[in-house]
Amino acid sequence: MTYCVGISVPDGMVFVSDSRTNAGADHINTYSKLHTFASDQTFLVLLTAGNLATTQGVVAQIDRDIKEGQLSHLFTMSNLDQAAEYVGNISIQEQNKHANKRIESSFHPEASFILGGQIRDEEPNLVHIYPEGNFVHASTATPFLQIGEVKYGRPILDRIIGDESNLHTALMCGLVSMDSTVKSNATVGPPIEYLVYLKDSFNALVHNVLEDDDEYLLTLRRKWSENIRVAFESLPIAPGLDQLNTSTTTTNIEILRS
Amino acid sequence: MTYCVGISVPDGMVFVSDSRTNAGADHINTYSKLHTFASDQTFLVLLTAGNLATTQGVVAQIDRDIKEGQLSHLFTMSNLDQAAEYVGNISIQEQNKHANKRIESSFHPEASFILGGQIRDEEPNLVHIYPEGNFVHASTATPFLQIGEVKYGRPILDRIIGDESNLHTALMCGLVSMDSTVKSNATVGPPIEYLVYLKDSFNALVHNVLEDDDEYLLTLRRKWSENIRVAFESLPIAPGLDQLNTSTTTTNIEILRS
Repeated sequence: MTYCVGISVPDGMVFVSDSRTNAGADHINTYSKLHTFASDQTFLVLLTAGNLATTQGVVAQIDRDIKEGQLSHLFTMSNLDQAAEYVGNISIQEQNKHANKRIESSFHPEASFILGGQIRDEEPNLVHIYPEGNFVHASTATPFLQIGEVKYGRPILDRIIGDESNLHTALMCGLVSMDSTVKSNATVGPPIEYLVYLKDSFNALVHNVLEDDDEYLLTLRRKWSENIRVAFESLPIAPGLDQLNTSTTTTNIEILRS
Repeated sequence: MTYCVGISVPDGMVFVSDSRTNAGADHINTYSKLHTFASDQTFLVLLTAGNLATTQGVVAQIDRDIKEGQLSHLFTMSNLDQAAEYVGNISIQEQNKHANKRIESSFHPEASFILGGQIRDEEPNLVHIYPEGNFVHASTATPFLQIGEVKYGRPILDRIIGDESNLHTALMCGLVSMDSTVKSNATVGPPIEYLVYLKDSFNALVHNVLEDDDEYLLTLRRKWSENIRVAFESLPIAPGLDQLNTSTTTTNIEILRS
């Protein structure tokens, strides 16, 4: 599996992705799922999930179209919707290439993408491109999009991210969301890659890869675990358990019952 | 959907369930998913998820077998494994009753259960009964079991629950896990029901139902949101963003870039 999240805030956007791919438990590899496409007036990030052959095929085709100077390629798009449609079409082509070639094959060529960034004087924005090639936008009410194993990392985004969040909050929340997913799902794992895009810059402000033993990543994990425990321990006690405090032992409970 | 969790700790066990059922977005109802079966030497809790007709049929059949004094019913079982097999068999019978009766029906009679409690001098334990009728035990390494919409509420369980947790921690963690699920998934909702079982008591120590507007539930939600925010805000800053602090505005960023 995969977990990728893109967050759009007034100052710009943040992209976070894991780098683990697996085709069965004994076929685990590391591939980047965060791809950047930058020219003078276009800065786009593509996050990928799903069939690895499909996603690699899509990225390679986008690159080829640019290199060969095709009539239309990613840098000739005049807005994000056009770019999303272009990527969606390439995705469909890639999926169809190998579909139905083998009889009774349980082949799943599906892939999903998050495409985000800025084209010329457009407002930066994010889209989620489905396997069918259609897509939805992030909005101020839903300023983040996720693909892959999306549920474990969702609660922290729901709690923290609002339409007025800044880049710092967005990045930290993306990293915590990733950490929760990595902790609960063995098929999502480091290296963790992240990119911060500042509105109107047409450049990556930060683009980092954190390996499994990265000192910052280890500190973040430890600190978040500690902080969650502190947050948990000061909660108001549930009705009915008022008499049981956190130091309760079996002996104490026996006394309470007698 | 549904979310139910059972947690087994040295002092006893905790069960938490939501009460929302839905068959389409305009057919939402409230049903208890936490059922207790108690006699002198047996205390069992059954949490249910899946097809509501199936789960209601299973609970009704268990009750009928007891009432009619059948040769074997839930209170004649000598251990939890036997009880789980008995419930699994009833579940299979219920599912088969209506399967394949309509041509081209997309009918899904599947149901899952958590069965937990204590029978005589057995150690209290928990099992997860699958739609196929087979089951797995909770263990010291995995002291909790979940059914239904399990992913949103998993990270907090992974972080907090260990084999030495006490009943207080188990209940609070179950409630927080439920809160995260309710917040992120519209098909899981109050009333929230919980039960605390103290080892060797053969009685519910606490059995409560928290309605949507319950004062404690509202306080817990607010406090957990606040505490998470505090936990989040003191995290170490990610590499590359060291210069951006939480009060960063677009203007500040412009200065940093120049």
